[in-house]
Amino acid sequence: MSHTQTNGLASRVQGQVHIIGAGLLGASIGLGLRSHGVEVTLEDASPTTVALAADYGAGRPRSDADPEPALVVIATPPDVVADVIERALTRFPDAVVTDVASIKLAPFQTLTERGIDLTNYVGSHPMAGRERGGAIMARADLFAARPWVICRDEETPAAALSLVESVALELGATPLEMTPQQHDRAVGLVSHLPQAVSSLLAARLLDASEQHIGLAGQGLRDTTRIASSDPELWVQILSANRSSVVEGLEALQLDLEALIGALRDPEKPGARRHIADLLAAGNRGVARIPGKHGSSERFTTLTVLIDDRPGQLAALLTELGDLGINMEDLRLEHSPGAQIGFAEIAVLPEVAERAISDLKERGWTTL
Amino acid sequence: MSHTQTNGLASRVQGQVHIIGAGLLGASIGLGLRSHGVEVTLEDASPTTVALAADYGAGRPRSDADPEPALVVIATPPDVVADVIERALTRFPDAVVTDVASIKLAPFQTLTERGIDLTNYVGSHPMAGRERGGAIMARADLFAARPWVICRDEETPAAALSLVESVALELGATPLEMTPQQHDRAVGLVSHLPQAVSSLLAARLLDASEQHIGLAGQGLRDTTRIASSDPELWVQILSANRSSVVEGLEALQLDLEALIGALRDPEKPGARRHIADLLAAGNRGVARIPGKHGSSERFTTLTVLIDDRPGQLAALLTELGDLGINMEDLRLEHSPGAQIGFAEIAVLPEVAERAISDLKERGWTTL
Repeated sequence: MSHTQTNGLASRVQGQVHIIGAGLLGASIGLGLRSHGVEVTLEDASPTTVALAADYGAGRPRSDADPEPALVVIATPPDVVADVIERALTRFPDAVVTDVASIKLAPFQTLTERGIDLTNYVGSHPMAGRERGGAIMARADLFAARPWVICRDEETPAAALSLVESVALELGATPLEMTPQQHDRAVGLVSHLPQAVSSLLAARLLDASEQHIGLAGQGLRDTTRIASSDPELWVQILSANRSSVVEGLEALQLDLEALIGALRDPEKPGARRHIADLLAAGNRGVARIPGKHGSSERFTTLTVLIDDRPGQLAALLTELGDLGINMEDLRLEHSPGAQIGFAEIAVLPEVAERAISDLKERGWTTL
Repeated sequence: MSHTQTNGLASRVQGQVHIIGAGLLGASIGLGLRSHGVEVTLEDASPTTVALAADYGAGRPRSDADPEPALVVIATPPDVVADVIERALTRFPDAVVTDVASIKLAPFQTLTERGIDLTNYVGSHPMAGRERGGAIMARADLFAARPWVICRDEETPAAALSLVESVALELGATPLEMTPQQHDRAVGLVSHLPQAVSSLLAARLLDASEQHIGLAGQGLRDTTRIASSDPELWVQILSANRSSVVEGLEALQLDLEALIGALRDPEKPGARRHIADLLAAGNRGVARIPGKHGSSERFTTLTVLIDDRPGQLAALLTELGDLGINMEDLRLEHSPGAQIGFAEIAVLPEVAERAISDLKERGWTTL
């Protein structure tokens, strides 16, 4: 099962790796590389954080006796990343320096404006994280099967690029090349804008009565889940990528104004049409999100009633396995106050009908 | 398993039930009541829809020989519901009349303004639906374990209230009493506002490049899932509940303006604090949503790496069952381009540690 256990083969990553910033991402990279036998040293503004990450097996504190590392990985909060990159390039002039901050353009521009030689710097961003941070949440497999954006330019030496790619591959991620501009626009749209909107929506629940919130269903849960993310980190991310985020928010603001205007007087000629157009644009937008495994294939969803007892869902999935039906996705839905739930199972359209009749035959209630 | 099969006991619902509007909700109510042996007649503006619903077993077309029904259930689109209620009250003066529209105040006000005697009318709203509508999607268990809001006033006869409650209970739902005002404010907040916001967010994806959308993760998927709902139906719902929806959208608009203002110049004194406050308000808002089964208990989430082969997830859940670990919730996460995924499993905090060590012992990779 594991993709990161030492398998006796030499690691793709040759030489020592020094990680600056031993929180969730830094410690996870350390854990992952250590499991491949790479020698990892750690550094953090907080000695406690270094000690904790070392205790978890993410590496050891760097000592004066250590040689210059082959690679420095900077995993500090985004608002100090440019300074830390600059210091690392001076301190380790022969090392390749990368960072894993979730914004790429602002640090790059800051360093360029300062006239820093960025030949040895290759920015990167693994698309991975958890709602809670810290070394204590670190895991070697955090990056498995995630995209890992790598930003090179014409001056990036092939060896430097390939060292950073090796780290991504060793940790099970999929390297993707983008410019800092492309990266920031992409995450501004697919990550930062949804975060801001989800937070704004969730904030509306603050003044609501318990009774009102009691009617909450899966729609509200899904749209507000990421609103529980860390405000301190997200202030930095949104601020650092403000041009892309503000552009998205302003476009949304125009649509929002139009929607409010149309809703204030839906009898006005064209108002209902305008509302329908906005909703239809949402339909088409969501249809563009690639499905599982990057495919845009559409699945048919079966809904199966399950009792809320241990083993019920396992029994259902075992049954599906026995029937030779591959489940493409699964979502559980619960109802307040009830002891039963639904499993929504996505399958290929061509097997849906057979799946339903076979499950019914075996006593399941499909809806 | 099934909660709606005829069990030989007499139904709580005595007398004939006539359903007007044989789409998803009407046909599902018919199917559910029929399975309890209740005599159900159907009517729809479209003869094809009636025939289809009848073919599915939701009831039979009403004939002139039928006696006056004990209950009329109106399941038409929201924008015609007031007219249909009015006609039903005239046509069947001794019947109790209910409707299942997702807005309750506007039809009630319309009928009151017309001076209609509403003694026999009890509005209701089952909190159930599917992303696709139509009799073809109908299911007897659509309402199982869902809240079913019932709107009574001082003049509602006890017998009328109790007949509508009987239908809700017979279909497995949980009746909840609210005034039309309370209902509309509640669904305005927990259902209509998230729908509007999700649609506005998803519309932002229309102009994005494939490359940008390729970085989409679970956050974007969750926040935009409901944006695939039917525009025609939602134009009616949002318009009919406009005062509550506009109130929510305007409050969100103020926060959005403040966020955009702060992001345009995050160096301005107080700007970062303002952004953090908005994000923190989102944290507190989302924390108010009740968890599974209406409880606000928090669970610990284990993340387990699973190969994308049929039977892998079933094997994991069977293992959990064998270990006596009750899964409180489950979410699958996939990565673009990869053949592995993660199962995020919520368990009670006190069993989390044991679950992790037991799973590891059995060869699973927990993260």
